[in-house]
Amino acid sequence: MSKQELRVLGQDGVDGCCPGLLTTPLASDQAAELARVFKALGDPVRLQLLSMIASRAGGEVCVCDLTPEFELSQPTISHHLKLLREAGLIEGQRRGTWVYYRLVPETTDRLADILARPAGQPLARTPGACS
Amino acid sequence: MSKQELRVLGQDGVDGCCPGLLTTPLASDQAAELARVFKALGDPVRLQLLSMIASRAGGEVCVCDLTPEFELSQPTISHHLKLLREAGLIEGQRRGTWVYYRLVPETTDRLADILARPAGQPLARTPGACS
Repeated sequence: MSKQELRVLGQDGVDGCCPGLLTTPLASDQAAELARVFKALGDPVRLQLLSMIASRAGGEVCVCDLTPEFELSQPTISHHLKLLREAGLIEGQRRGTWVYYRLVPETTDRLADILARPAGQPLARTPGACS
Repeated sequence: MSKQELRVLGQDGVDGCCPGLLTTPLASDQAAELARVFKALGDPVRLQLLSMIASRAGGEVCVCDLTPEFELSQPTISHHLKLLREAGLIEGQRRGTWVYYRLVPETTDRLADILARPAGQPLARTPGACS
């Protein structure tokens, strides 16, 4: 899953950079793949989980440290983590009893590139005609 | 709606920049507001609409030019545009019969900032201990 996302997010550019959401109309297949990643970010608990994982010193968090931070069951937290993993935003590694998660920074880098204005090209905001 | 989103997206930084998704655990209220914007991006049709609006020369698109690009009804397209507008991603202006939409680049700028790695701080990816 995550490999597919990463491939699609990086398919249009050099060095894995940028389908260009703001510069070219997205094709429907690109839009479908990209929407899945944004949809994974479109939930408050998943955003909090992602920020907790990404900001942790050492770069890795045990699921055993994530669950107590929420008033949610372990299966619910695991479901949210699964959606983040399937979107290619995090990756997990089981060691013994627990799974340890870390950010996949290449995915957030690509989303940031996709949303950034093209270099040296401020987006036009002057009124145009309706043809 | 969009004013509320913009305020929350920019509340933690200087010059409207960056709650810092990757550097600090998000508070639940920040996560809720930010999730609404990402949720608006979490749909293929809305992503295509946004990219069509953002990439249009002149910076503005008549809704009359957007609808024919999709095999969807006018009310459905209008609903998607409303969600993008409520998320602060686009703004619309009625002139005569039609509404004209343009990107709010400050919102996509802020999302790009939020997702970018902190300058000079590559994210740690070394294994850590589970305390």
